[in-house]
Amino acid sequence: MKKEILERFDNTYPNRDYTIEIVNPEFTSVCPITGLPDFGSITVRYVPDKSCVELKSLKYYFFEFRNAGIFYENITNRILDDLVEVLQPRSMTVITEWKARGGITETVSVNYSAIA
Amino acid sequence: MKKEILERFDNTYPNRDYTIEIVNPEFTSVCPITGLPDFGSITVRYVPDKSCVELKSLKYYFFEFRNAGIFYENITNRILDDLVEVLQPRSMTVITEWKARGGITETVSVNYSAIA
Amino acid sequence: MKKEILERFDNTYPNRDYTIEIVNPEFTSVCPITGLPDFGSITVRYVPDKSCVELKSLKYYFFEFRNAGIFYENITNRILDDLVEVLQPRSMTVITEWKARGGITETVSVNYSAIA
Amino acid sequence: MKKEILERFDNTYPNRDYTIEIVNPEFTSVCPITGLPDFGSITVRYVPDKSCVELKSLKYYFFEFRNAGIFYENITNRILDDLVEVLQPRSMTVITEWKARGGITETVSVNYSAIA
Amino acid sequence: MKKEILERFDNTYPNRDYTIEIVNPEFTSVCPITGLPDFGSITVRYVPDKSCVELKSLKYYFFEFRNAGIFYENITNRILDDLVEVLQPRSMTVITEWKARGGITETVSVNYSAIA
Amino acid sequence: MKKEILERFDNTYPNRDYTIEIVNPEFTSVCPITGLPDFGSITVRYVPDKSCVELKSLKYYFFEFRNAGIFYENITNRILDDLVEVLQPRSMTVITEWKARGGITETVSVNYSAIA
Amino acid sequence: MKKEILERFDNTYPNRDYTIEIVNPEFTSVCPITGLPDFGSITVRYVPDKSCVELKSLKYYFFEFRNAGIFYENITNRILDDLVEVLQPRSMTVITEWKARGGITETVSVNYSAIA
Amino acid sequence: MKKEILERFDNTYPNRDYTIEIVNPEFTSVCPITGLPDFGSITVRYVPDKSCVELKSLKYYFFEFRNAGIFYENITNRILDDLVEVLQPRSMTVITEWKARGGITETVSVNYSAIA
Amino acid sequence: MKKEILERFDNTYPNRDYTIEIVNPEFTSVCPITGLPDFGSITVRYVPDKSCVELKSLKYYFFEFRNAGIFYENITNRILDDLVEVLQPRSMTVITEWKARGGITETVSVNYSAIA
Amino acid sequence: MKKEILERFDNTYPNRDYTIEIVNPEFTSVCPITGLPDFGSITVRYVPDKSCVELKSLKYYFFEFRNAGIFYENITNRILDDLVEVLQPRSMTVITEWKARGGITETVSVNYSAIA
Repeated sequence: MKKEILERFDNTYPNRDYTIEIVNPEFTSVCPITGLPDFGSITVRYVPDKSCVELKSLKYYFFEFRNAGIFYENITNRILDDLVEVLQPRSMTVITEWKARGGITETVSVNYSAIA
Repeated sequence: MKKEILERFDNTYPNRDYTIEIVNPEFTSVCPITGLPDFGSITVRYVPDKSCVELKSLKYYFFEFRNAGIFYENITNRILDDLVEVLQPRSMTVITEWKARGGITETVSVNYSAIA
Repeated sequence: MKKEILERFDNTYPNRDYTIEIVNPEFTSVCPITGLPDFGSITVRYVPDKSCVELKSLKYYFFEFRNAGIFYENITNRILDDLVEVLQPRSMTVITEWKARGGITETVSVNYSAIA
Repeated sequence: MKKEILERFDNTYPNRDYTIEIVNPEFTSVCPITGLPDFGSITVRYVPDKSCVELKSLKYYFFEFRNAGIFYENITNRILDDLVEVLQPRSMTVITEWKARGGITETVSVNYSAIA
Repeated sequence: MKKEILERFDNTYPNRDYTIEIVNPEFTSVCPITGLPDFGSITVRYVPDKSCVELKSLKYYFFEFRNAGIFYENITNRILDDLVEVLQPRSMTVITEWKARGGITETVSVNYSAIA
Repeated sequence: MKKEILERFDNTYPNRDYTIEIVNPEFTSVCPITGLPDFGSITVRYVPDKSCVELKSLKYYFFEFRNAGIFYENITNRILDDLVEVLQPRSMTVITEWKARGGITETVSVNYSAIA
Repeated sequence: MKKEILERFDNTYPNRDYTIEIVNPEFTSVCPITGLPDFGSITVRYVPDKSCVELKSLKYYFFEFRNAGIFYENITNRILDDLVEVLQPRSMTVITEWKARGGITETVSVNYSAIA
Repeated sequence: MKKEILERFDNTYPNRDYTIEIVNPEFTSVCPITGLPDFGSITVRYVPDKSCVELKSLKYYFFEFRNAGIFYENITNRILDDLVEVLQPRSMTVITEWKARGGITETVSVNYSAIA
Repeated sequence: MKKEILERFDNTYPNRDYTIEIVNPEFTSVCPITGLPDFGSITVRYVPDKSCVELKSLKYYFFEFRNAGIFYENITNRILDDLVEVLQPRSMTVITEWKARGGITETVSVNYSAIA
Repeated sequence: MKKEILERFDNTYPNRDYTIEIVNPEFTSVCPITGLPDFGSITVRYVPDKSCVELKSLKYYFFEFRNAGIFYENITNRILDDLVEVLQPRSMTVITEWKARGGITETVSVNYSAIA
């Protein structure tokens, strides 16, 4: 299970809203139709509540997608869902930017807020 | 008919607003007056409702304009109309940026929102 | 008369607000004090109502200033006035950015809106 | 007196709010503590009322600081005060950006508005 | 004690809100887990009240972290707390941007405002 | 026949070796296998002998390839052969740089010299 | 066997030396020690003799390294050996540029010439 | 006569070969066919012998071409001839780089050496 | 002893000259006069003979200079001497590029060749 | 006397040719004709023999030109002469690059070699 790889540590400053942005420009997965690799960059931006994500475990979590066949739109929503479930942040944004295929690039961005 | 080339697939996350941005920097059509080629970049940004556009079919749709003679302003509005009709998105923006002719560049941008 | 050079064509999509941005990085006029040439870039951004400006005529209109002696501030306001009179747009912005003279650059920007 | 160097000319379009931005990337003064030169860029952005600043006189005004020993924060506020007094603009912003000293850069920005 | 290194000087223009931004792209500390060096850039942006921070003392304050083992999130909050205590600014933002480790970069940003 | 579109004009300075470099970043042809468009930039650099190529005719010559299906390597050698035959230059280089397909870009360069 | 994936097509211009440069900025393999992914860009530049490499087969050849554990230096020499064996070029250069690990980047370049 | 505008001053260091490079990115002339303006950048690089060119007079010399209709190739050779005649340099290079017309740019470069 | 930290591994392709370039943009040492930190980038480029340097050990070797007080010129020569002694390469270049101090940057480069 | 400000320190590695490049992008002097300030960047590149230039003294040496009226060509040759006299290097290059005046930039470069 991918999301069980994710580790967290206690937020030392829970009384204050602040923002953590993590960028991984070395993400790769596989196109579910052609089986050929896709390459992209993933940005995770969040306001932590009780927990922060441990960077090394996040790296291993991203590594789990290396040979998975999954669409751009689904991978972006899936990463948001996993990180929200594990971290329970006050808010979070996930952005994936994909290298050109056939001359066309795609970017997908999705937001979550604990205040519905 | 150009827009019938467009294919869609089901949005897996319809309960959530999220944004898809597609950029095609390799668009070309023909000037309706001189018959000479125009070159530009097309950006389509939308919040999907029930459907997402399939990238390869979008590429073929853009390819249909290759030898069509059409003004910058009309091509931009036309692409918005076609994509709105096929995808019924929650909102959409289409931006076309054209390479210089006589030292002058032009950018056209148009928005659509399902919430009138 | 400079502004009589400007030609327009009918806006095919008058029921929709959309934006046209034209950039001419090859503008030149003459300093009214020294008689030496000034070089700059002109940006015209507008929401058309019934008419759009024809690009080639706009190029000839800009060409009319080539040997005219006129201050940065006045040329910017003058271009806005001429284009508003000819096109009657819903809104318009004109921005001129001038190359350094004596190590100093200047940018002038002015807006018009039909909704006073 | 530095500010007496500043000359103005009549604003030809006083009935309209528009913005003039002047950038001088070749500013230099002297550190009041070490006596060593500081280098920076000055941006003046304002909406004129009755008067505009004459560019050549502004250049001479900036030149007056060449051998003056004055702190970053004070020089920024001082330039704003001088220009507001001479031009009586509707609003003005002055920004100074200083080259690194000891690996550290500083930017100071200050605003004025005639509408208190 | 690190924060006692910080020196301040009187704000000469306390009647006016203005902004000072200081960027130090040469910050380094040590990873508390691996003991290996981290490298980053620190931005401090504040509206001074009665005091401004003296740049050289700020440099020495940053230098104190050179061999300290401390997490990205904590160092950012700690610097904000120290500077707020010493300067009592009207508002302040601290941003730290860290070089890639394992291909992943992190940016942490935190704000303070005297008006709760 | 494509190359018959090319026009030339007399070199006014035949007693002197000098270099003319022409760059067309808006070249497009069609993949002979997939029928999908390819986009690239073409550079022609030559030392004229008796003739120079007329730019507008060169543009029309390049336009002839718009719907032709031809490999990168062959198009580059073909353009060199055509231009050498028409212009009889002292030397010539043709370089084509192609936009990424499947994440991979290709550049082809070929030289000609009248002095074998 | 990786190199058997490589396909070639006949060089249509064997009487002339010309250069083909192929860049794949989306290469990934696995560190033989840590098992973590490495990311890099591969450049292949060669003068063909009788054969050129077919781009799509080259892409599949590179894809074969995706889950292989191999050092930077060895992968670079291995790719040169494979391509020289299959294409028998007049000369060839292979360059691999690797993304930072622990803040350190590495580039490896190796040349081959048929004229010993 | 254009070249008579050029002024020179004595080279203070005639015993030493050294290089002076002058770049004017604000050159404009007129297309002899269409009458429309061309824009370009001119670079003059030379090793002086007895004389150096006075910069202000060079500026006025370039200004003389503002409304002249002349081809790219000829203007480049003409400037070289004029400057060589006036300055008698040990060597000189003139490069003109022209803004795109119809998507195509041109660069012309020509060298002179006193040692035939 | 710093250089004893350096580890090597066998060059798998000793029959061929090829080049390895390693860049560490995160180097820091201490000014021997002021005790303040210096920041720079180190490039090591070499043709291996029997051995290659192990990257992680090189990183630890560079880390040893973190609190050492040493001049730019000496650190560059010292690193070359250490690496030549340990690796016995066919040739090597070391380049250090230092961040500005007092607005002035310095770069030092030194070469070694086994063929005297 | 300006050059007497220059200090040197012993070259620790006199048995080896290596290169030191110093760049000062914050140079300013005064135009001898208009009295207005000129701004430029100075590069000094040399192979030391027995002595290296001390950076702080070089900074003060450059500072001496702050209010001196001197032509671009002469200042470049003068700096070379001063540094060669004080350092007696094996070879040296001085390059000055000046900010645009009237839209025109100038670069002057001069070389010295001890081996006549």
